[in-house]
Amino acid sequence: MEDEVFPRSLERFGHNMAACRWLLGTWIVIQYGCAVGYPKANRDSTMRDCSKTPPYLPATVKISTEDLHNIRQEMQAQNISAYIIPATDAHLGEYTAPREKRRQWLSGFTGSSGTAVVTSSRAAVFTDSRYWTQAERQMDCNWELQRTISSGDIVAWIFSEVSSGQQIGFDPFLFSIDEWTRYNNLIKDSGRILHSIPDNLVDKVWGSQRPSLPNSEIYSLPNDFVGDTWQQKVENIRDQMKKHAQKPTAVLLSALEETAWLFNLRAQDIPFNPYFYSYALLAEDSISLFVNNMSRITPELSTYLNTNCPQSTCVKVLDYNQVRESVIDYVKGNVIVWIGTKYTNYGLYEIIPKEKLLAEEYSPAMITKAVKNKKEQELLKNCHIRDAVAVIQYMIWLEKTVPSGTVNENNAGDYVDSLRTKQAYFKGPSFETISASGLNAALPHYRASNETNRGLTINEMYLVDSGGQYLDGTTDITRTVHWGKPSDFEKEAYTRVLIGNLELSMLVFPSATSGRVIESFARRALWEIGLNYGHGTGHGIGNFFSVHEWPAGFQSTNIPLREGMFTSIEPGYYQEGDFGIRIEDIVVVVEAKTEHTFENQKYLTFETVSLVPYDKNLIDTKLMTEIQINHVNNHYKKIRDILGKELKKQNLNEEYTWLEKNTEPLSHGQFVTASLTLLIVTFASCMFFQNESI
Amino acid sequence: MEDEVFPRSLERFGHNMAACRWLLGTWIVIQYGCAVGYPKANRDSTMRDCSKTPPYLPATVKISTEDLHNIRQEMQAQNISAYIIPATDAHLGEYTAPREKRRQWLSGFTGSSGTAVVTSSRAAVFTDSRYWTQAERQMDCNWELQRTISSGDIVAWIFSEVSSGQQIGFDPFLFSIDEWTRYNNLIKDSGRILHSIPDNLVDKVWGSQRPSLPNSEIYSLPNDFVGDTWQQKVENIRDQMKKHAQKPTAVLLSALEETAWLFNLRAQDIPFNPYFYSYALLAEDSISLFVNNMSRITPELSTYLNTNCPQSTCVKVLDYNQVRESVIDYVKGNVIVWIGTKYTNYGLYEIIPKEKLLAEEYSPAMITKAVKNKKEQELLKNCHIRDAVAVIQYMIWLEKTVPSGTVNENNAGDYVDSLRTKQAYFKGPSFETISASGLNAALPHYRASNETNRGLTINEMYLVDSGGQYLDGTTDITRTVHWGKPSDFEKEAYTRVLIGNLELSMLVFPSATSGRVIESFARRALWEIGLNYGHGTGHGIGNFFSVHEWPAGFQSTNIPLREGMFTSIEPGYYQEGDFGIRIEDIVVVVEAKTEHTFENQKYLTFETVSLVPYDKNLIDTKLMTEIQINHVNNHYKKIRDILGKELKKQNLNEEYTWLEKNTEPLSHGQFVTASLTLLIVTFASCMFFQNESI
Repeated sequence: MEDEVFPRSLERFGHNMAACRWLLGTWIVIQYGCAVGYPKANRDSTMRDCSKTPPYLPATVKISTEDLHNIRQEMQAQNISAYIIPATDAHLGEYTAPREKRRQWLSGFTGSSGTAVVTSSRAAVFTDSRYWTQAERQMDCNWELQRTISSGDIVAWIFSEVSSGQQIGFDPFLFSIDEWTRYNNLIKDSGRILHSIPDNLVDKVWGSQRPSLPNSEIYSLPNDFVGDTWQQKVENIRDQMKKHAQKPTAVLLSALEETAWLFNLRAQDIPFNPYFYSYALLAEDSISLFVNNMSRITPELSTYLNTNCPQSTCVKVLDYNQVRESVIDYVKGNVIVWIGTKYTNYGLYEIIPKEKLLAEEYSPAMITKAVKNKKEQELLKNCHIRDAVAVIQYMIWLEKTVPSGTVNENNAGDYVDSLRTKQAYFKGPSFETISASGLNAALPHYRASNETNRGLTINEMYLVDSGGQYLDGTTDITRTVHWGKPSDFEKEAYTRVLIGNLELSMLVFPSATSGRVIESFARRALWEIGLNYGHGTGHGIGNFFSVHEWPAGFQSTNIPLREGMFTSIEPGYYQEGDFGIRIEDIVVVVEAKTEHTFENQKYLTFETVSLVPYDKNLIDTKLMTEIQINHVNNHYKKIRDILGKELKKQNLNEEYTWLEKNTEPLSHGQFVTASLTLLIVTFASCMFFQNESI
Repeated sequence: MEDEVFPRSLERFGHNMAACRWLLGTWIVIQYGCAVGYPKANRDSTMRDCSKTPPYLPATVKISTEDLHNIRQEMQAQNISAYIIPATDAHLGEYTAPREKRRQWLSGFTGSSGTAVVTSSRAAVFTDSRYWTQAERQMDCNWELQRTISSGDIVAWIFSEVSSGQQIGFDPFLFSIDEWTRYNNLIKDSGRILHSIPDNLVDKVWGSQRPSLPNSEIYSLPNDFVGDTWQQKVENIRDQMKKHAQKPTAVLLSALEETAWLFNLRAQDIPFNPYFYSYALLAEDSISLFVNNMSRITPELSTYLNTNCPQSTCVKVLDYNQVRESVIDYVKGNVIVWIGTKYTNYGLYEIIPKEKLLAEEYSPAMITKAVKNKKEQELLKNCHIRDAVAVIQYMIWLEKTVPSGTVNENNAGDYVDSLRTKQAYFKGPSFETISASGLNAALPHYRASNETNRGLTINEMYLVDSGGQYLDGTTDITRTVHWGKPSDFEKEAYTRVLIGNLELSMLVFPSATSGRVIESFARRALWEIGLNYGHGTGHGIGNFFSVHEWPAGFQSTNIPLREGMFTSIEPGYYQEGDFGIRIEDIVVVVEAKTEHTFENQKYLTFETVSLVPYDKNLIDTKLMTEIQINHVNNHYKKIRDILGKELKKQNLNEEYTWLEKNTEPLSHGQFVTASLTLLIVTFASCMFFQNESI
């Protein structure tokens, strides 16, 4: 799944995930503003028309009058003149539970990106061009649609409504430290006051409609799927605390994946990610786990977590809502709290005195999690074998069914998900499948909808980006295929994207090199002819976690690459209004045996873990070097070996045949041609001599 | 000339030049600690021995007792318990005038890097391993040698001497904003007070021995060597002020090259760089130039600068020492001062109220200067033609003279400088030539001294890194040669360094790409077999400015690459105790014509401006691709064409013949071999048929 967009000219902003999200938006506004189209240009009956009296409202809008009235009363009670409502939850992840979708409930607008602001007389949603049309379909005329997502624009809009001396309210739990800093810098010298209100105002007025507390089962991973026990992980982190120069006495874990990782627990509170709403405070002498809806801690879990004892190896389970008070209590002592700034919300940050804070970009849990041990590596490789079976079955089904004209983006996307369900340990898709045909695939963030749903034909390229959650790991793979006769340009573009994928995955580089400084190897073949792609080159991935697992990867916000990290490599090319190509594999960072060693530096390279062959119908080997071709062929040997066994094991003979056919070695057109010409010429000439001599 | 060392694992620290210098030090400590040797290990009579009573002091040390006594009295008068004395001057450049070498005068230690700290009872110099031996030779026993340069260690040492409540003094003019911030962060919560003392204490006690005010002639560049007149530049910068969102009313120029650039003035106040000590305050309605030793402003210069009028296009010339007061006066008004934080000292920064400050990493002067206009590009290319003549004459001389055994690093280095003096518009070397033979070349920062001076022989590789200052531009080139039979490993290492140079200079990339994300192309061929180099890949260079011209280049502190920028490309490899290789060319960023264009993105590539062929005795073409070989051969064609003309013009026939010989096209061993084998096999076999048929 392609990760955040990252224009290299703006690299220096990139050291900040929030800024990166902002860039994503801006970039999309720039790139796709026109493609998506300015709503007014093609307004239709599916969209509101607030210029009419009475305003025209389609059935799809939410009537927000009463809820806005109620929230304004709460605002008055708190004496604030504006209230900022972001789309995030307190854990700053990519997905949130329905219960956390405050902006969506209040405004009706369901887009994943966008901030709402309410003042005494106005209300606005700020979002990027991907969502303009959608917003016009979902919001009533109480809401302005502001076509921007920059904090600067939001603050400017607020200033036009809020005068000096007045207060701007926000829920500190819904702001990252970076996000808060950005707002604070814009507001602090303006005379307005940025006022932190830990009790969320939307929650107060949401009332009975609000989805109840998460109730998904929290379960511990079976031992077979565990790299280290939670006790070993606790010991490891405590060890890092002892070794740290600043002698932290506790680590505060705020990202949902951090508690899931530490305790080897999983659940299903949010879509696609196997997490449960929680925090953890891992101190040198105690462990506190804060869980939303504690009733889910079964007796088995209590035993597993060792909850009924006072020792430092026993877990105290507390209610999710106690976290702020608990931290306030804890920091009264002579302590130092270690946090990762990227995933800690401002609501917890603001209560820790700065002299008792050890703030690093990522918590030791995130850093430790990024490097997989031998068993975790095995597990991750295993799930990719079974995942490849499903993807290959999908490829075969497409080959057979597309010509009939019955396949479209929607039912195709559903089908690949259904194939994964047949594989062992499957727990659901790891993100919403991107199933895009022809020009739809040229929008990197495209999701098929009923309006856009396009039929698959043998005359268009088709891009499918999908992945699964398995007990042993998370998968993510993109393949682009063409069942007919691709144009020369389509073949060249595909081949150059493939070359980019290969050039990066073949690279040998010193350990601890930042992914940022090598990802251009995935772009060079495209750059050479003036092509490029506007998104990142890869993101970390892990053992049954988020499909975008930070902090490993190729962006400037990622940490240096080390042996045992897993990441995607996914260059692409998007020809607006025509087609889209992306070739995504998961790779693991492995040691490279080099002929020499410079200052005992360890060298690394990538081993490709994804086991689905590329589309030979789209490969022009004449553009490839022998080394690149050999690399593909070696990988194909490995696919035949590993996947072949699995297909036999699952008695999938048709799939086995397909695999054999589609992993036949590529041959080097160019070299062969050159040599053949030479051969023919020589032979001809010597035949000539021969005739002479007769 | 190789630029700052930059371990990529520490990339994130790199966004800060001071940190980068720190890294340089640290890296060298790590890499060369052993190479240089821990003084005690091989202490000899050239070094002090403070363990003896009385201490043993070689004649080379400075006796500092009285000067230390005097400065301590000044410290008492100011009520400070410690005083920090850096090696820099107020303009934070690479070189300083003798008059500015305060740490050197007080301690006797002449190394380019290192900070001194004096307390009431102790005095210490902190420096990196390059200088440990030298420091033991130059300092008396009043001084401790502290083998570190991290601010953290310096501050820790100070804390051991200065208790809470006491003051630590420093000259704000000798600290960059970053450097001050680092010290302040370490000190602010410690109870000690960091106390800014604008009147330097060393200057007060230096007295009559102190070198007098700079007296070098300040002259305006002849029109032929000027890209834009100073009036055009003033207009350009004022235009940028108007267009800037924050509406600055003035730009404060602190780097010496900024005033030299703005007014097209040059001088010789410091070694190797054609600058004069100065500041400039370019306001929307006035221009102030602050000059050290105003007596140098001749009537001609007054006319040139238009000093005798009140208009906004007239330059007010003021005394250097008035700058702080003038800025204090200026910021009383309703103004906003635009500065570049990298080159503005804390002494000027601290007097500008933050709400009146527009601080960006580099001033608009630095950013504008980085992109050369057509004429400036022509000028820079021209000086590289004449410079190549000198370097080629040097190569010929070496070929002829080295076998006689009379050449050593010192006299060779002098000779290349002397050859440049014969070329038009030469103004002196652009840095101290690095002339290094055999194992000496393995130390990237090696400078030949009488102790280390090594004879050149046909059995060792020789590295020469040198450059010239010409009225039309600055040059910098490194060549590595071998006149005998290099080992296979030497050839492979050289060829891979060359491949790195070519791979980067051939690269096609989108405009505004950061050099940081493409410099790995210069490393890949080395990485492939486990080799690497520890310094940066290239630095900007300009029209008769510093040889390291920021902010163009390949480090994270550099700005994105744009058409018209000049930079060096200089990969290397250093085999400790054996040999050193570096191949450095100057390149200009030019537009690349690509087959397609992605979102109207402009594409760029590099054109090599240096015109000296590589050493074919060290090239193993079998390791190179045809594309790389063709690139070299095309460049050789260009050299023959451009340089050939120049040599004829200068009637240098021997040089012309040498050039012809050394720019003969390389041929692709591998491909030829392959084809030949094929040819022979085929021919043989068909001969066989032939015989059969007879």
